[in-house]
Amino acid sequence: MNKQVLLEKRPIGMPSADTWEQTSTPIPDCPEGHILIQNHYISLDPAMRGWLNDAKSYIAPVGIGEVMRSSGVGQIIESKNEKFKVGDYVVGGSGVQQYCAVDVAGWVKVDPNMLPLPKYLGVLGMPGFTAYFGLLEVGLPKEGETVLVSGAAGAVGSVVGQIAKIKGCRVVGIAGGAEKCKYVVDTLGFDACIDYKSENVYKGIRQHCPSGVDIYFDNVGGDILDTALTQINRGARIPICGAISQYNSTDRPKGPSNYLSLLVNSARMEGFVVFHFIHKYGQAAADLGKWVAEGKIKSLEHVEEGIENFLPTYEKLFSGEKRGKLVLKVSE
Amino acid sequence: MNKQVLLEKRPIGMPSADTWEQTSTPIPDCPEGHILIQNHYISLDPAMRGWLNDAKSYIAPVGIGEVMRSSGVGQIIESKNEKFKVGDYVVGGSGVQQYCAVDVAGWVKVDPNMLPLPKYLGVLGMPGFTAYFGLLEVGLPKEGETVLVSGAAGAVGSVVGQIAKIKGCRVVGIAGGAEKCKYVVDTLGFDACIDYKSENVYKGIRQHCPSGVDIYFDNVGGDILDTALTQINRGARIPICGAISQYNSTDRPKGPSNYLSLLVNSARMEGFVVFHFIHKYGQAAADLGKWVAEGKIKSLEHVEEGIENFLPTYEKLFSGEKRGKLVLKVSE
Repeated sequence: MNKQVLLEKRPIGMPSADTWEQTSTPIPDCPEGHILIQNHYISLDPAMRGWLNDAKSYIAPVGIGEVMRSSGVGQIIESKNEKFKVGDYVVGGSGVQQYCAVDVAGWVKVDPNMLPLPKYLGVLGMPGFTAYFGLLEVGLPKEGETVLVSGAAGAVGSVVGQIAKIKGCRVVGIAGGAEKCKYVVDTLGFDACIDYKSENVYKGIRQHCPSGVDIYFDNVGGDILDTALTQINRGARIPICGAISQYNSTDRPKGPSNYLSLLVNSARMEGFVVFHFIHKYGQAAADLGKWVAEGKIKSLEHVEEGIENFLPTYEKLFSGEKRGKLVLKVSE
Repeated sequence: MNKQVLLEKRPIGMPSADTWEQTSTPIPDCPEGHILIQNHYISLDPAMRGWLNDAKSYIAPVGIGEVMRSSGVGQIIESKNEKFKVGDYVVGGSGVQQYCAVDVAGWVKVDPNMLPLPKYLGVLGMPGFTAYFGLLEVGLPKEGETVLVSGAAGAVGSVVGQIAKIKGCRVVGIAGGAEKCKYVVDTLGFDACIDYKSENVYKGIRQHCPSGVDIYFDNVGGDILDTALTQINRGARIPICGAISQYNSTDRPKGPSNYLSLLVNSARMEGFVVFHFIHKYGQAAADLGKWVAEGKIKSLEHVEEGIENFLPTYEKLFSGEKRGKLVLKVSE
């Protein structure tokens, strides 16, 4: 049987027990041209929250009764496509389920001997690509500039900062808690990290970014975005990657009151969606793979077990409990 | 004697009778290398409000007791600089006063026979340059795109829309009142204009921008910016030129709640300051001069009289009473 997680009811605010339904259906057939995959790991990402809202966005919302959307990595157990063999490992849009039979479009082979499978959902998957394009194509870092990153211990922020170091920037993170901040500095090699739970973020930026902020890579929105806006330099870039502080709000999101800092500094705030860079994924995978192999980019995966634990695992995206990229092991 | 307007007290919210002081001093001497100018017209601009705040910005605030900063156009009555002759007309940073003796840096000769003097403070002055660089260098219009402009009847917005028409765009304005909207469409040639005082702006944008908004040129901020953000296309650009709805607020400015529309649309919001384009003023003057001469850009100047009327004239910047570029005639 194929255990699945279906969207049952759109949440208002934080998802709860009635948001998703656990079901079990027969393992699907494998139509001509398709591959049948047993999923090993499912990716959990803050972007999932947006997919639950019935609103116009860069992608259609998940429908009620549909399998919850996610990336996944698994092994092919039946192939009716000549480009893929049984036994190959692949990554793609699996959905939160143990098996999927898919048209091969968008699925990519990965090598489990080169890296552990969960890394293909993290540093070498969507979060890594998001960091890569958001920093390099939207942030446009130049050597010697100062890059400030929120969510610095997270799947995206951790990679943003390490790429910025590779590019010769001064890199300052913002994260929640002493342990995360220590990891960001000691393991990831950021120049400093501000603990927003125990420090004044404004003072922290003033202290650790003495030349001001040239790039603020924003994963969180809210008050931290507003504070960062007060410290930007002329010509600064603010890639808007996410706003995790606002995703479960039942009010309207808090807009950045200090946005007129963009005006007086001739600065920009620019959103992006990783899917819009699909034509460049090959380059991103090559660069990130090389940097990981060289030890220039380190990553941590937080693995939970059991598809039946999808909801409590999902909640860890927002509670601050997880460390690094959050994945769920859904089968052996 | 030289009548002057000095900053007396920093306002909270809207300036009032105790913000500025009217004084009279002897006409200044003309030091070596300087020119002595009799100012004919003074420019009044919403940016003046920002110069009154004691805050870090793109330019230092006007000091207490200093002559209020402004552009002005006038005639040279004494010259100790070989590049300028008595009788020449010049435009530059005059301050709100009848006479000024200035180092010639930043002063430019103008021809009163080609255009009436007030136009050198409007369409061929800072507002025109602001429109030119904000649209062309920040907005980056492409033929066939839809450009939405707030403050469409104003000194900047009116020029933005007309340049966008020259560049082959569909152009929709937003202005306050039926008379202004009629002017924007019938005289300036915009494709449509939404009256925010009597129409629902959301419905107006939906109706008049059926292909969505590629560029929203924002002069106003507040609710109109938030509404425009809901209607932008993928890759949209939002030049942030001003936020006249927020300048006199005694609260923090209202941040755009819908800023995450930038994320899902891979769009950008970018501020700019006209002074940062000073190296390209020559090209702007040449292009704008040509378009005005060809009748492709029309402009309206609202002239008030008498330096003693500076405060009531200033108030017209925010009351919606004026039509086009606001200038004050300060001497014959």
